[in-house]
Formats: sequence, C-alpha cells, structure tokens
Amino acid sequence: MHELGLRAKSASRVLAGASTATKDAALLAAADLLVERSEEVLAANSLDIDRAEAAGATATVVDRLRLSPARVEGMADGLRNVATLPDPIGEIADGWVRPNGLRVRRVRVPLGVVAIVYENRPNVTSDAAGLCVKSGNAAFLRGSSGAISSNIAIAAALREGFVKAGLPSDSLTLVEDTSHGAAVEFMRMRGVIDCLIPRGGASLIASVLENATVPYVIDGDGNCHIYVDATANLPKASEIVLNAKLQRPSVCNAMETLLVHRSIAAPFLKRVARGLDTVELVGDDATREILGADRVAPATDDDFATEFLALKLAVKVVDSVDEAIDHIARFGSGHSEAILTGSVDAASRFTREVDAAAVLVNASTRFVDGEELGFGAEIGISTQKLHARGPMGLRELTTLKWVIEGDGQIRG
Amino acid sequence: MHELGLRAKSASRVLAGASTATKDAALLAAADLLVERSEEVLAANSLDIDRAEAAGATATVVDRLRLSPARVEGMADGLRNVATLPDPIGEIADGWVRPNGLRVRRVRVPLGVVAIVYENRPNVTSDAAGLCVKSGNAAFLRGSSGAISSNIAIAAALREGFVKAGLPSDSLTLVEDTSHGAAVEFMRMRGVIDCLIPRGGASLIASVLENATVPYVIDGDGNCHIYVDATANLPKASEIVLNAKLQRPSVCNAMETLLVHRSIAAPFLKRVARGLDTVELVGDDATREILGADRVAPATDDDFATEFLALKLAVKVVDSVDEAIDHIARFGSGHSEAILTGSVDAASRFTREVDAAAVLVNASTRFVDGEELGFGAEIGISTQKLHARGPMGLRELTTLKWVIEGDGQIRG
Repeated sequence: MHELGLRAKSASRVLAGASTATKDAALLAAADLLVERSEEVLAANSLDIDRAEAAGATATVVDRLRLSPARVEGMADGLRNVATLPDPIGEIADGWVRPNGLRVRRVRVPLGVVAIVYENRPNVTSDAAGLCVKSGNAAFLRGSSGAISSNIAIAAALREGFVKAGLPSDSLTLVEDTSHGAAVEFMRMRGVIDCLIPRGGASLIASVLENATVPYVIDGDGNCHIYVDATANLPKASEIVLNAKLQRPSVCNAMETLLVHRSIAAPFLKRVARGLDTVELVGDDATREILGADRVAPATDDDFATEFLALKLAVKVVDSVDEAIDHIARFGSGHSEAILTGSVDAASRFTREVDAAAVLVNASTRFVDGEELGFGAEIGISTQKLHARGPMGLRELTTLKWVIEGDGQIRG
Repeated sequence: MHELGLRAKSASRVLAGASTATKDAALLAAADLLVERSEEVLAANSLDIDRAEAAGATATVVDRLRLSPARVEGMADGLRNVATLPDPIGEIADGWVRPNGLRVRRVRVPLGVVAIVYENRPNVTSDAAGLCVKSGNAAFLRGSSGAISSNIAIAAALREGFVKAGLPSDSLTLVEDTSHGAAVEFMRMRGVIDCLIPRGGASLIASVLENATVPYVIDGDGNCHIYVDATANLPKASEIVLNAKLQRPSVCNAMETLLVHRSIAAPFLKRVARGLDTVELVGDDATREILGADRVAPATDDDFATEFLALKLAVKVVDSVDEAIDHIARFGSGHSEAILTGSVDAASRFTREVDAAAVLVNASTRFVDGEELGFGAEIGISTQKLHARGPMGLRELTTLKWVIEGDGQIRG
C-alpha cells in the first residue's frame, strides 16, 4: 500500500506540470479504450454480479453494480465531457504589490494525490479518475470488494489510455486490497494523500472521522427542508414541493421535511397532498388535523432528523419564518434549504440566517447539484464548511499557492 | 463543556448577523476594558508566573507567559488594529445566471464557532478572540493550565467589552477545565465546533490528528529552504540568507537548510559564513571541504528533516535546480521555499515544481507572514492544502454559502 502511495505521489508531480492539451488527450484516449474494452469490462462486471446475487444482495444493490454497453458508453461520455470543461490549473486567483516592492500572487494548483473511498458503483472509478486527472491530481481509489472485478477492468483501460497520451500509468491507482484493515491504513497515509473524499453512507463517514489522519472533505447527509411562507404563490409552491420530493427521492438534495406557515396551511396542504398519493406522510398535530389522522401518522423528532431518501415526508405547521429557521437549525444537516415566499423580508431573513451549504428562494432543492449550477460535473456535495461547501467540481480539487517575487528584499 | 459549546453556538448565530459597526465597537470596547483592568490582569498573570517558577519552568517559558503593562497595551492595540481591517462578511465571491433563469451567487459568511487550542501565551486569548469576532465567529478557546489565571482575567474583560457593544458575552468562551480529557472532549464536539485551529507543538498536532472529529486546519512546521542558484546575485543572496536565518530564528518562516549550486558554492559559502559566526553549521562533504571540517559538522538526514527554530543551519551543495527541487520534495514541510537566481527558467521551474504554501524568488522566507503580505493580522500559517494554505487572516475564518434565487423553477 505504501509503495502504491509513493507511486501515486510521484505521478502527481508529473500531472501537476501537464498541459491542458495532454490531460484532455488522456481523457479522450481513456474514453475510447473503455469503449473498446467494453467486453472485458462487462465480463468482469458479471463476476461481481454473480457474487452479489449468490450472496443474496438486494435488487437495488445489484442494479447499482450492474454495467451494460450503454452504461459503459455513459462512463466514456462522462470522461469526454470532463475533457471539454475549462482547466482550473494556473488561474491567478488574486495578486498585488506590497509597499516594499514584493509582487505577490496566488496561483491555482492541483492538490496532489486525491483519494476516494467509495461503495459498489463501478462508474465512480472512471468519474473520479476523470475529474482528478483534469484537475492535475493523481487519483488514488479504493472501491468496495463487491465491485472489485469491474473496478480492476475499468482502471486497467483508463491507465492504458492515460499512458497513450504521455501521462504516467499511476495517474490512476486502484487499491485492490478491499479489506477493512486496508481501508483504515489508506485513511492514515499522511504525507501521501493530500485530500480524501469518502463517498458512502454513515458507517464510512464515521470510520473516516475516527481513523483518518489525512485531510478529508465530508460528503454528508442531506436532510433538506422546504418552508412555504404565508405569502407564497401556492400553485407554484405546490409544483416545487412535488418536484423536490418526487423527481428523484433517493438523492441527497431531495426534500425530507415540509414546513408550512399556519395561515395558509389548510389550503396549501390539501392542494399539495393530491400530488403526494405515493408518499408516506408523518406530521405534527396541525397537519394531521388538516389532512386526517388516517392519512398522516404522528411525526417524532427522529422523523424530523431523518434523511429518508425514499417516498416518505415529514410535515410541520409553523407560526413564523423564525420558527421555520429554528426548526432547520435544530434538525437540518447543512445541505440545502428552501423558502417559498413573496416577501422580500422573509426571503432575506431566511437566506441570511439559515446555516447551510445552499439556501434557495422559490426554487426546488433539487437544483443544488454541480451540473445544475454550471460546473459540468461534480465529485460530490460537501456538507462541511472548510475548503469546499456544496457541490464540488474541478475547482474544489485544487488549492492556491503563494508566489512571491522580489529583487533582494529582506525583512527589517 | 457541552453546555458551553451550545452557548457558543447560540452566540455565533447572533454574531453572524452583527453589523461591521457593532463588531468594531465591541473590539474597541474590549480593548479599552483590557487596559482599564490591567492591574487585575497583571495580578492574575503573576499567579501563573509564580506557579511556573515554582515548577522550575525555563526562562523562555516564563518570558512567553509574562505580561507587563506594555504587553497588555499591545494586546489592546492588536484589537484596535483588527477593528480597522475590512470586514470580509457579506462579500459576494462570484455569481451568475443559469439558462433556466436561476440567479446564483456565493456569499462570504462566518464559519460559526471557531475553536483554538493553544499553549502558554496569554496574548493568544485576545488576538484570537479579536479575529474571530471581527469575522463574525464565536471564539471557543482552550488555553493551557499554565496560563489559566491570566486567560480567565483577560477573557472576563473582553466578554464585558463585547456586551457593552451589544454582542453576547458568549462571543468569547474560555474553557477553564485544562485537563487532557477536556482537550480530547473539546476536539470531538462535532456539530458545535465548525473549525478547530491548534496552535502548538508536535504533540498537540498529533493529538488533533488522532482524536479530533471536528474539522481542523493544521498550523504545522516550517522546515524552510533557500536555494542559491548558479546565476544568483551573490551579495544580495548573502543578505537574504542572513536575514532568513538570523532576523528571528525561532519562528516557522526562518530558513533551516541552505542549498547552494556547486558552481558558486565556494565563493558564496565563504562570503555568507562570515555573517553566520553565531550559527552552528552542519553540512554535506562539499560544504565541509569549502568551510572546513572543524567549522561544519557532518549533516545527517535527520538534520535535513529538522525544523531547528534556533541558530543552527544545514547546508548542502547541489548540482542543479532539479537536485534542489528534489531535496525540498523529500525534506520540506510545505511551508515556504525560496530560490535566489538571475535565471527566468530556474525561477519559473522552481515556482511551478516546488509544492509548498509559498514559493519565493529573490526574497527572504521571513516575508511569509500575514502582516507582511498585507492581511493586517493572522491567526496562524496553514501548512495543509485544504481550506487555507499559508498565512490565515480574516478571510480564512469564513466560508461561502450558495444563495440561489428563482421564480418557481423545478427540475425536469
């Protein structure tokens, strides 16, 4: 493992100096090779599928794991798309001249070795590798045992593609030891790994918090709220609420709790409930009174604290924007929070006072996504405040270096 | 401790909305009160001094701990200076409109609760509190047992000053339990502490890496190099080298290793050695040959890896800028690295290829400092790549929040 790390580190020094043209050529070559090697990749994938099915994995797990010719094409298209994005490296973030004549600037540079720990999704292997290489970083990947055959086949094709364009094969390193011990060792490679991004559930995050000594960015839960204010446009609000809950319930920017101002609670909840037939509702007393105790089960604090990622919604009637803000401060996970309102005052208070990666006014929480915000691609959504907050694209895989030029200045 | 944390969190919500005028008034009121309470602060400090002397502390430790009327005035002036700095909160970092009409912007906001663990320097109590409050953060401080009486007296004065200006007293919270257990508990207050900045030596950093579950920024070692290239202006290079070693040897941006190109090694080393009488030299064979084996002891790899923070210097003769870059890649700590050269090529390769928070051309490493770069004040120097790299001022105590405004957009 240590040997792999040193090779990744050494590759990262080459990548840091690689031109945009070389990096883009490497991504295109890797995309072509991935498609060319489709049969090998699919054969490897079927080994993973067989093992998963033999072990009695759920249909959802098997579906996430399963590749098809179209999905392999999709991975290749992802790499080609990243090749079209602007290269963040070399950007001068700011600069000035000091009174003593020192010329100071901050230049955007790669992080170095970016490590990703992820679960049974073989497409992450190529998505992550593409974003890392485009941003001049070596990708150091540790997938799960369940996808190991697929990951090995995908990584082999990508590495060969990178070499074709003149980049080191270790621009992408896949750790093949998928034991728990290896994962912990991986998280402690201080001096090798410059940034670790865990992509997985609560137990992976907990393991990173306990074990990691390398710097990391947490891609955490999204317990997202929509607050429908007294002055909201109710037909539009209803469309937004249905979109945020139903369009893709299993993702982190879907709505999990609906807060409604008491003055419009009855008409609004009756209207929106018509679109929520397929959704299990839990709510406070006022909600249950409006929609009926048989339609809405009582909501517990646990419900309000839970990211359901499913067709389930918690509903609460509140007396003011303050009560909505307080509820979000207590239960929110700092991901995405929306207010639907016609009031400038309410919008302004909500956007200022709610502490989250993203706050939205009169729009669906589902827009908090790298592609929707214009990044082109994302490597995750950070729910922490340091380094990156919200959707992480290529720029979030970089850091700034101070460059200070003088002509003999000494400090007095 | 948990109760203290919740109070700090609650204060942070008030601070996040405080105007610049209120925050500045709070800093000025705190500065005035600190001076007014000088006698109480000095009386408390003498208790700490007595305990330190009774325990046989070294003169250096006692000196760091000792306050005087002038040092208390200095702390107050520090607060007044921070009041004059621009407020980073509310800055719009960037923004754009998406094709669907969503208006997107990123707004600079406080981190929330900023925690600092520090050693026996009572002035950190007021410096850190000033920077935190100015940037809209609650300061959650945990100093050492050795300075606890001084810290309690200083914190009491500052808190009273903050209240005078209308801010919550918990804008500054000092943890009075200085046990090891309390320090570990402190580092694990996830959900309360938004950013932890440890200011101390290797054992504190190691404890943070092992124990912390809150996000942190490491203010690490500075094993800084100066490389004198074949084309350097030797008289100027000599002045810079002497400045970087001698002007203040005990700080992290002082030079610890001198690398010299072989073609100018003899004349340069002989010239610069005249200014280094007070400095213990260790070097490679070539250096020992030039300056004499009695003047220069043999340098080990340990020497090259050590941040001496003292009048000691490691010297090595290298054959090329590549060898200098490789040496720095192997032994550097990623803090500040300088090249002294007349060659555009050498300068450009060095600044691109050396991986450090700051790279300098023809200037002393001592300039890598918040005040020297124009920040006005600094809370530390980060040697990590995430969030903040190099000197950390007010801006590094902030994060960005996405604000997304629409008029009913839903995702298709």
